[in-house]
Amino acid sequence: MRPPRKHDNSALIVGRFQPFHKGHLQIVKIIMEQCDQVTIGIGSAQYSHTLENPFTAGERHLMISESLRDEGLERFFIVPVEDINRSSAWVTHVVSIVPPFNKVFSNNALTKRLFKEAGYKVMAAPMYNRHDYSGTEVRRRMLDGGDWESLVPTAVSEVIQEIDGVNRIRDLAGKDGE
Amino acid sequence: MRPPRKHDNSALIVGRFQPFHKGHLQIVKIIMEQCDQVTIGIGSAQYSHTLENPFTAGERHLMISESLRDEGLERFFIVPVEDINRSSAWVTHVVSIVPPFNKVFSNNALTKRLFKEAGYKVMAAPMYNRHDYSGTEVRRRMLDGGDWESLVPTAVSEVIQEIDGVNRIRDLAGKDGE
Amino acid sequence: MRPPRKHDNSALIVGRFQPFHKGHLQIVKIIMEQCDQVTIGIGSAQYSHTLENPFTAGERHLMISESLRDEGLERFFIVPVEDINRSSAWVTHVVSIVPPFNKVFSNNALTKRLFKEAGYKVMAAPMYNRHDYSGTEVRRRMLDGGDWESLVPTAVSEVIQEIDGVNRIRDLAGKDGE
Amino acid sequence: MRPPRKHDNSALIVGRFQPFHKGHLQIVKIIMEQCDQVTIGIGSAQYSHTLENPFTAGERHLMISESLRDEGLERFFIVPVEDINRSSAWVTHVVSIVPPFNKVFSNNALTKRLFKEAGYKVMAAPMYNRHDYSGTEVRRRMLDGGDWESLVPTAVSEVIQEIDGVNRIRDLAGKDGE
Amino acid sequence: MRPPRKHDNSALIVGRFQPFHKGHLQIVKIIMEQCDQVTIGIGSAQYSHTLENPFTAGERHLMISESLRDEGLERFFIVPVEDINRSSAWVTHVVSIVPPFNKVFSNNALTKRLFKEAGYKVMAAPMYNRHDYSGTEVRRRMLDGGDWESLVPTAVSEVIQEIDGVNRIRDLAGKDGE
Amino acid sequence: MRPPRKHDNSALIVGRFQPFHKGHLQIVKIIMEQCDQVTIGIGSAQYSHTLENPFTAGERHLMISESLRDEGLERFFIVPVEDINRSSAWVTHVVSIVPPFNKVFSNNALTKRLFKEAGYKVMAAPMYNRHDYSGTEVRRRMLDGGDWESLVPTAVSEVIQEIDGVNRIRDLAGKDGE
Repeated sequence: MRPPRKHDNSALIVGRFQPFHKGHLQIVKIIMEQCDQVTIGIGSAQYSHTLENPFTAGERHLMISESLRDEGLERFFIVPVEDINRSSAWVTHVVSIVPPFNKVFSNNALTKRLFKEAGYKVMAAPMYNRHDYSGTEVRRRMLDGGDWESLVPTAVSEVIQEIDGVNRIRDLAGKDGE
Repeated sequence: MRPPRKHDNSALIVGRFQPFHKGHLQIVKIIMEQCDQVTIGIGSAQYSHTLENPFTAGERHLMISESLRDEGLERFFIVPVEDINRSSAWVTHVVSIVPPFNKVFSNNALTKRLFKEAGYKVMAAPMYNRHDYSGTEVRRRMLDGGDWESLVPTAVSEVIQEIDGVNRIRDLAGKDGE
Repeated sequence: MRPPRKHDNSALIVGRFQPFHKGHLQIVKIIMEQCDQVTIGIGSAQYSHTLENPFTAGERHLMISESLRDEGLERFFIVPVEDINRSSAWVTHVVSIVPPFNKVFSNNALTKRLFKEAGYKVMAAPMYNRHDYSGTEVRRRMLDGGDWESLVPTAVSEVIQEIDGVNRIRDLAGKDGE
Repeated sequence: MRPPRKHDNSALIVGRFQPFHKGHLQIVKIIMEQCDQVTIGIGSAQYSHTLENPFTAGERHLMISESLRDEGLERFFIVPVEDINRSSAWVTHVVSIVPPFNKVFSNNALTKRLFKEAGYKVMAAPMYNRHDYSGTEVRRRMLDGGDWESLVPTAVSEVIQEIDGVNRIRDLAGKDGE
Repeated sequence: MRPPRKHDNSALIVGRFQPFHKGHLQIVKIIMEQCDQVTIGIGSAQYSHTLENPFTAGERHLMISESLRDEGLERFFIVPVEDINRSSAWVTHVVSIVPPFNKVFSNNALTKRLFKEAGYKVMAAPMYNRHDYSGTEVRRRMLDGGDWESLVPTAVSEVIQEIDGVNRIRDLAGKDGE
Repeated sequence: MRPPRKHDNSALIVGRFQPFHKGHLQIVKIIMEQCDQVTIGIGSAQYSHTLENPFTAGERHLMISESLRDEGLERFFIVPVEDINRSSAWVTHVVSIVPPFNKVFSNNALTKRLFKEAGYKVMAAPMYNRHDYSGTEVRRRMLDGGDWESLVPTAVSEVIQEIDGVNRIRDLAGKDGE
């Protein structure tokens, strides 16, 4: 008989990935070098079609999985994580829907505090150039017609093209007629 | 036997109608000239008693139905539509609770984009004087003691009087004593 | 100036109408003879595609409005009413989304009790042949290939035909493959 | 046989109590002098771990009960009250989960208006020094390292110490690394 | 300065209490002899007006508090606990809304298992005559006109009389007229 | 530049997998032979700790991923899918959280009908010995002490052992002490 399966070197990273950019990719690659397995939680999964959260969880899943496969990476899971308006139960909620993990990587203050209070080992996500690579900046450039493609992996720009993502953002920014 | 009932010239228009004003009335009248049937969706139906959304869906239903009847109009339905925090499912939600329609009129960016992605024909709501007629302006005048009555149909000012609506808005704007 | 609008002879009737049958039509017609206005609440509005609740609120709206119009009736409103799992707040919920009413007609024990506790005048819905006309019986005949058309108004059987309703019910009754 | 139990001098007071401070304590003490019984509703009960709402309902329960017991007070109940995004049903919701009361004390505009529309007797909460004693001020001082302890009852500062509350607030204010 | 407040001998007991009967009272009394403090969670708090859950959380709160006060008991808290359809997060939910406890008493299989998996010390509720004293039996007798009063504390039968509880149950059991 | 990524041979299969058994594994393997990619939706994802739904979505994720990896399979995604009590919006909900697919495999009547009405190509899941391999049978044997291990892949029995799953089911079946 085989020994019990080990999950003692598995990481969880949660982000909104609106969209998944090169900074995110860099983080995932560094974590994968240190861990046997990475679960990527797509946060705020229920939201889409707003300027802050333009893409659905399914679209973000596609962006991430295609980007990682282009890098030849395989030891990852992607799980949509809906926001629940009850911070005290959020960690339990996450734990109940993802495979086992024993390290959490995050730079988000709330995420870090909640996992810490729940007794998890929380580590700062690896550093990257946060000025250049940020979801806010990517979305701003999409809106203003700037060069957003250079900030995201090739697979992400292809997915956004397939789903007509730039026009979606521009339409959403249109003047509201109540 | 009668031929199948036709719904191929039916319109849907969705708004918050906080409150229903003369600009709204003008839009509905123009659409009714072009369509056999109009369904008016009362958006954000679950909200009330805030400065942005002072009136309940039932109160807004009364404002609209009385205004349209005063105009002798009859080929309309009024349906409360609650917000759901999941944009991607909103169109399906609306479709499942209103009678059939094949044209959507809206000037709201999100509404237009969502129906467009779902394959519906979306048209800009007919133009009217949007500077003078706006819900925001009506509510502002209620609060400040200005002449809001001239911006709304007679029926609407009567309903607001019956429900003591101006005092509601002024009370809600009162200083919070938490 | 006109006198305040009166709503002191307006009725509310709530049912699931799965589907709207001749017994329901008879009830609505009798109430309309006694009242100036009738609001028909489509209960359990969020449910559809089950054997108990096969039709969406939108489909039920169409069944009812077409049936009443075939009878030349006009003084009615149709409002979808979602179940909320909090009985104590249900009456307040209903009141907040429908136009004013001062009489409630119902034969449902819970509906009657809740409106009674909230201080409303509740009357038994007018009698009709409940053995022959019942939603359960209509759905049973649809499933078994019996004559369900004779139990519903013509408009209802036409709507059900348009939406392929009988096949929906038969598909839903199909053997489950987990 | 005993006479029916009386609840005709019972008060309800609802607040967020983030955290419970000396101004709150003063209000409760004055109301208790006038009433036989006080129910303290902990509003926005489901929220915690944000800068506006750092403490859970359970932690706030402990702060309040320990503070009142330190004062030798006993005729009180503490009930968590979750926000529901449907103002029109909020009073009914509250009434269904707390013991009977016949007076409401509040300085909050929405709370006062909603209870007033529902027919309750609403009274302004007794005055206290609102400049010095406010939840906002207490949280600001926790964040900035100021003297927050002097603004809250001893029991509250002990509870906050036990749960490491000051570090929680400071962590939550940390720079977000999304 | 006082030593840190201790909560290391505090119990939690959760039940539906539909209604609170003499068996429940006996359990609470025995636990109070062993513990410094008891928190009584009113489970399924959002439900009422059904044959299984006839009474609101507020009515049950009154039944319990009056019964315990009649016994001269004071070291208790009563907290409504709503069901959440996510078993895995239920313990966290409860913990976030009640004051601290370190022992859980329950005879309910799910409650016991969930607290056990969360690492809590779970003890069987003290024995009592469960054949005679059960909520099901009390409700059955109310419906059938039997002697239910002898199964509940005096305060409970008084509360049920005040709220016309027996007629509520009988009305709810009335024949449904769909 | 690469050609647009193709997703025109991708399958979706949704099930509760309580637990994942050899019949499920056989289905997935057959579908994988026909399709480039398979997304496995874990239905009723929010439920756990009941006799019908004993395992969390996270535990089921682990059972499935470990079983498929033991078979050397890689072209799969696993996505938790929560039930929403609004059948008409369920397909849209699923589509919004999973990567693109163009074929749906299911033997469940409701799932098949809903995807069919939404215009998807729905195929019966490949046949397997449904008498021997069924979640109901596996759970029954766990409860009764029968040989359940032979009905599930090795990885599943290991996961269930690690999480003490058999005792969980037996505890949940224990006598309720309300």
